[in-house]
Amino acid sequence: MDGVQNKVSVATPRIEVCFSPVMYPAYHNPEAIVVVTDVLRASSAIVTALMNGALSIIPVETIQDAKEFKSKGYLVAAERDGIKLEFADLGNSPFNFTSEKISGKKIVYSTTNGTQAIHMAREAHQVIVGAFINLNATCNYLSQTGRDIIILCAGWKNRFSLEDTVHAGAIVERILQDKRYSTICDSALAALDLWQLAKPDVRGYLEKCAQRSRLRKNKLDDVIDYCFTPDLTEVIPVFKGGQLVDIQRKN
Amino acid sequence: MDGVQNKVSVATPRIEVCFSPVMYPAYHNPEAIVVVTDVLRASSAIVTALMNGALSIIPVETIQDAKEFKSKGYLVAAERDGIKLEFADLGNSPFNFTSEKISGKKIVYSTTNGTQAIHMAREAHQVIVGAFINLNATCNYLSQTGRDIIILCAGWKNRFSLEDTVHAGAIVERILQDKRYSTICDSALAALDLWQLAKPDVRGYLEKCAQRSRLRKNKLDDVIDYCFTPDLTEVIPVFKGGQLVDIQRKN
Repeated sequence: MDGVQNKVSVATPRIEVCFSPVMYPAYHNPEAIVVVTDVLRASSAIVTALMNGALSIIPVETIQDAKEFKSKGYLVAAERDGIKLEFADLGNSPFNFTSEKISGKKIVYSTTNGTQAIHMAREAHQVIVGAFINLNATCNYLSQTGRDIIILCAGWKNRFSLEDTVHAGAIVERILQDKRYSTICDSALAALDLWQLAKPDVRGYLEKCAQRSRLRKNKLDDVIDYCFTPDLTEVIPVFKGGQLVDIQRKN
Repeated sequence: MDGVQNKVSVATPRIEVCFSPVMYPAYHNPEAIVVVTDVLRASSAIVTALMNGALSIIPVETIQDAKEFKSKGYLVAAERDGIKLEFADLGNSPFNFTSEKISGKKIVYSTTNGTQAIHMAREAHQVIVGAFINLNATCNYLSQTGRDIIILCAGWKNRFSLEDTVHAGAIVERILQDKRYSTICDSALAALDLWQLAKPDVRGYLEKCAQRSRLRKNKLDDVIDYCFTPDLTEVIPVFKGGQLVDIQRKN
């Protein structure tokens, strides 16, 4: 850790938003905390799994990696394009991650967009996972660190995604209430404006987003209300030693 | 040209927005017309140059390429980070491209973001250059083709840029008034919403954008009002045989 750089960062920390994993190299900052968001549904599912007592989640990028873990006896959650892969134990719906199924277990997890985003950001100071369901806890934690923040939207196959952006805007709004923070990042300003449009009726505003249509088409849209419900938990998944664990866990 | 695919495209054409050249592979569609926008200042400058009688503009990606053309006697416009490069004849300000300087000439042009975006899209059906100053002409042309449309924002070093996005939103608004067109593209929807926020006072809304600050810092912000003025010309630069020429030019 460079103490001087850290000090500068604490004095005038910044918040930025990156709209796609493929843009991340243009935003990378080794001193920053990266918040990965993939609201529909990976980041909401990951927070839910830890909330319901999973020991940890091992995000893997490829289906092959997920299969190898499966053959070693791990519980595996894996989907592509929203659909559970045949060999997997669990899909991508937060409703899959019930205490009965996952309490005390390590879960290997591979998704279309979310897990790649986590790996993309691993050279940052810290990577955490954000969702509406842990919004308040995430913002309190970020603000308390006083560090630079990058919100990395998982998007959809490297494309921009409205629901992740609106969630990013909700974080930007909260963080900029902490007067130490500022932004000169056009995407943070755009996310904030879009969040302010969405805020009075988030569910209604996001009716138009592409992922809403994909989930509806595949009859996977039962999770929408849940994923847009703020502050169900204080759990914050943090990426540590290749696994996501609750940031409050002591070991 | 695949006649069948073309027919399908004409029946239900779509408009999409790509926020950064680095995201373009996720949006690429060989049947689409790509509109490259880099409002502050490259696309405004390119339109201005053709409006003021330049014969053509040869966009080159690297400084080395620009230098080689210069040594062959070409008139060269080249900048990086907004600043004219020493060896170049012209910088990036539309005000450089006066009739006296450029009428009847071929201009070699290399910029931080805009020329790369043009090259990135060259496998599309057609690449044109859009700006506020040719907004109406661009929209009329696009709508008349009935083709799929991708608006490619040049952005800033692969980052998202608010002024290009707002311009993209203005095109989306106009194109969706043509009831044949639709979109299921989250970034087109976001651009449209941001344009509708900006529309009552574009200049005021874009005061906050990062490029505004960069130009102010380098005392290059005298072009802002000009670049945000709609419909000064009917000129539409089209990329043909490695050069940008006015689409109405017959040879």
